[in-house]
Amino acid sequence: MTDRPNTLSIDNIVKEISTRRGFLKRAAVTAIAGGAAAACKEGSAQKVTRAEGGAAMTPKPAAAPTLSAAEIMDNMHGAGVKAFPAKTAGKGNQPLAPRIDKGVKVFELTAEKIQWETAPGQKVEAWAYNGQVPGPQIRVREGDRVRFILHNKLEQSTAVHFHGLELPNDVDGIPFITQPPVKPGQSYTYEFTVPLGNHGSHMYHSHHNAAQQVGLGLLGAFLVEPRNPSKIERADVDYTLILNDGAHGYTCNGKGFPATEPVKVKTGQKLRIRFMNEGMMIHPMHLHGMHMTVIAKDGWAVPAPWKCDTLNVAPGERYDVIVNCKAPGVWAFHCHILPHAESDHGMFGMVTAVIVS
Amino acid sequence: MTDRPNTLSIDNIVKEISTRRGFLKRAAVTAIAGGAAAACKEGSAQKVTRAEGGAAMTPKPAAAPTLSAAEIMDNMHGAGVKAFPAKTAGKGNQPLAPRIDKGVKVFELTAEKIQWETAPGQKVEAWAYNGQVPGPQIRVREGDRVRFILHNKLEQSTAVHFHGLELPNDVDGIPFITQPPVKPGQSYTYEFTVPLGNHGSHMYHSHHNAAQQVGLGLLGAFLVEPRNPSKIERADVDYTLILNDGAHGYTCNGKGFPATEPVKVKTGQKLRIRFMNEGMMIHPMHLHGMHMTVIAKDGWAVPAPWKCDTLNVAPGERYDVIVNCKAPGVWAFHCHILPHAESDHGMFGMVTAVIVS
Amino acid sequence: MTDRPNTLSIDNIVKEISTRRGFLKRAAVTAIAGGAAAACKEGSAQKVTRAEGGAAMTPKPAAAPTLSAAEIMDNMHGAGVKAFPAKTAGKGNQPLAPRIDKGVKVFELTAEKIQWETAPGQKVEAWAYNGQVPGPQIRVREGDRVRFILHNKLEQSTAVHFHGLELPNDVDGIPFITQPPVKPGQSYTYEFTVPLGNHGSHMYHSHHNAAQQVGLGLLGAFLVEPRNPSKIERADVDYTLILNDGAHGYTCNGKGFPATEPVKVKTGQKLRIRFMNEGMMIHPMHLHGMHMTVIAKDGWAVPAPWKCDTLNVAPGERYDVIVNCKAPGVWAFHCHILPHAESDHGMFGMVTAVIVS
Repeated sequence: MTDRPNTLSIDNIVKEISTRRGFLKRAAVTAIAGGAAAACKEGSAQKVTRAEGGAAMTPKPAAAPTLSAAEIMDNMHGAGVKAFPAKTAGKGNQPLAPRIDKGVKVFELTAEKIQWETAPGQKVEAWAYNGQVPGPQIRVREGDRVRFILHNKLEQSTAVHFHGLELPNDVDGIPFITQPPVKPGQSYTYEFTVPLGNHGSHMYHSHHNAAQQVGLGLLGAFLVEPRNPSKIERADVDYTLILNDGAHGYTCNGKGFPATEPVKVKTGQKLRIRFMNEGMMIHPMHLHGMHMTVIAKDGWAVPAPWKCDTLNVAPGERYDVIVNCKAPGVWAFHCHILPHAESDHGMFGMVTAVIVS
Repeated sequence: MTDRPNTLSIDNIVKEISTRRGFLKRAAVTAIAGGAAAACKEGSAQKVTRAEGGAAMTPKPAAAPTLSAAEIMDNMHGAGVKAFPAKTAGKGNQPLAPRIDKGVKVFELTAEKIQWETAPGQKVEAWAYNGQVPGPQIRVREGDRVRFILHNKLEQSTAVHFHGLELPNDVDGIPFITQPPVKPGQSYTYEFTVPLGNHGSHMYHSHHNAAQQVGLGLLGAFLVEPRNPSKIERADVDYTLILNDGAHGYTCNGKGFPATEPVKVKTGQKLRIRFMNEGMMIHPMHLHGMHMTVIAKDGWAVPAPWKCDTLNVAPGERYDVIVNCKAPGVWAFHCHILPHAESDHGMFGMVTAVIVS
Repeated sequence: MTDRPNTLSIDNIVKEISTRRGFLKRAAVTAIAGGAAAACKEGSAQKVTRAEGGAAMTPKPAAAPTLSAAEIMDNMHGAGVKAFPAKTAGKGNQPLAPRIDKGVKVFELTAEKIQWETAPGQKVEAWAYNGQVPGPQIRVREGDRVRFILHNKLEQSTAVHFHGLELPNDVDGIPFITQPPVKPGQSYTYEFTVPLGNHGSHMYHSHHNAAQQVGLGLLGAFLVEPRNPSKIERADVDYTLILNDGAHGYTCNGKGFPATEPVKVKTGQKLRIRFMNEGMMIHPMHLHGMHMTVIAKDGWAVPAPWKCDTLNVAPGERYDVIVNCKAPGVWAFHCHILPHAESDHGMFGMVTAVIVS
């Protein structure tokens, strides 16, 4: 798509932006005087200053009082981008290594109330597994024998449902139907064999008072690797993106922009993104610059992969997509319900970037 | 998926729950004392008490004042499940047998204001066809000659649109475009031949002041059987599930949990579910324990059936899915927009179960 | 589907309606007296007065005071339909012819605040490209070299993102990431080659303070024609339908019913509709009388075209569908989230019609 050298990376984005800005200020272009006649005069401003995809910028006119509101707004927008990716305390969706007990992979999940920083300085109450929002990422293989020990340190009862896994009924995690609620101070053990043929991108989350408990953070990714991965799903970078929109605002993996994590890949690499929606609203995720090929829905391979640049993910759904990262650059990647992504104070919430270096 | 015996059915779910609860209380496990050190001690609590999918429950610690809020909440949740399926007055979506008039199948629909019980004790005003919400289920065959006689006993004019049927324009049911409104006290007759090739899961509903009239209940299923059903669509159990979210709250076939109807099947049976959304919001319906294979969209066979466990149904859409009921148990089946399904008072609204006995 | 002669067109719809109304009033049918016994008497009213799809209408009973509220409502509904398609000032989505500069197609876009009439008498503030909402329709061919000169006459900075086009990063249109914001009074030039293989239905819109700017109208269609169109996508009528739901209410191509534009085709013609959602909500668009075959998603050909009558379009998505217009008539075409299309004052917002003459 493009063969220009590209040195953009998250490490030098700020430098790059300031360099480019300097460059652009030097570009020979013409200011519009404003008013209806200006458009006609624009003919003189068509000197394109870049050979490929060039952008010709008019210099700022001498400071006018009418610009100040625009500049104040721009400064807020610019500060957000400069801060990206902003540091915050805590990181969710971190791989959880099991201990092995006689061939069984044992995972311990402790549900507890914590403080969680969704964006710099924005601390919220979260109910979290192992101190993370989303909870730790579980990655097992079909056929594995696994054990989950849930410790409830909340002030409410809870239970864990393994969303997308086709398990025996009594480990389905539904209080009063398949188990009693796990009361404050109690522990509860789920043990099962990960079913063959049921691999893919699944989730685990509370299924008790769930509108509140999941909204506050009791959720995580449950990835099941196939014994024989198909060629299409083998990727250089495997990224899980959990969307949420509850008490913590609009978040990607528990953080809002600019504290979201960019997805970093190298030109030519194959990227797999596993979308998961744990919220209450749809989120049509739009990737700039490169299309996505949908290969699985709710873990199940689609019969014929299909392409898109905007993927509508509804609550409870998961989609696996492949992106062939041919185009270097910092590519915006955001929910296209624009009020989930931007306000007049700048971008926030469900915005991140795929950075192809 | 599981070969354990399973005796769960809607008839003994309450007994089963209390039995299991007793069993679990007897399980030999260890209480956590609470606090950070407790997780480490949990190692001693890993005796799994069931061979398959076993669940080990810690006994309740001695009654502590801090537990009471949790227990009050749990009791409300438990009471809802115990009540399921709760009896309410009235049942919607009941098959309507036509009378035959010289080879024409004649259906009479009377639109009338009624009281409707959506959940035990929750009575709402409904505008209903033949006293049912949803209205009576119409089931005909492609090529049938049919006549619908609408009697309007409402205080508003109305009209019927046959949603999904490709009919001559003058029976499309749109006041001022294809017919006059049918005024209070009047009757109106629609007669047409059900088009060949247009079989599947359709709907009928008011198309006059429809945001109010459909929201209040003037809607129903219109199922057209093909002359030659394909193998994939022939099922042991054929269940129609109409979703709504208007003035009556979040409902499945006109009722909210615990008054919703469970879908009862036997292990090994093939279940067909016909989803229809007559509301104003999407409803991503999630089935536990077994996946769904989508075979039709808006009545049209999909070119390649695809699998999911969460199916996003938008207003006006219909989806036909097949579930191969291999796994015995009581499987939760609900909208995954969690506030449509659960509050801190327990499950409500768009929750039901597929019971595989 | 129907072989009856049909003279309905937008030019004579009002005449047709009044004619039919007269006809129906003459129809020999029986009024119901009202009350529970009336339904039984209805047997005498089954004389169908039209051979095909005939509709038998009871005459109005003598004016009763209880009818007046219904009649007031009907009159409002009728007036809306009679007014359709209502004239308003301004028309959006008009083709923009480029000037050619040494083989480059040059388009000028001027962003400016205007007054926009969404429905008769309903004037709103809009931020528009070239005085249109949606902005002018861009139609180019893959491989074309194009230049877009943006003139910002707004009081806010802005920028243009070419949504769906796979371009070099520096023309992606994201302030502070790929370019500086284009400040009030400034111009900015984007130049690029429309990528091969990236044809289809795309969009352009502001990507700065976009929740506000796109909501106010800074958006348009960007159609890329393939060098070799496939047979399935070649149509007699090619219609672009941009949905929005921001500050201007629920609109189709910038207008609300009855000021929306009907889609006019002739019986037997092949209609291509390009759906685009520039709003914040889903819009499941329902076409009466004829199904739609989805051939592309976000510009990409779907691997296997699929059929529907209700197509759920989420923000940022585009779908291309084909309608084989076999059935003459005025076919309602609207969002099936009913409060986006009708109130007790009549139809409004996202309602239009496909008129097959």
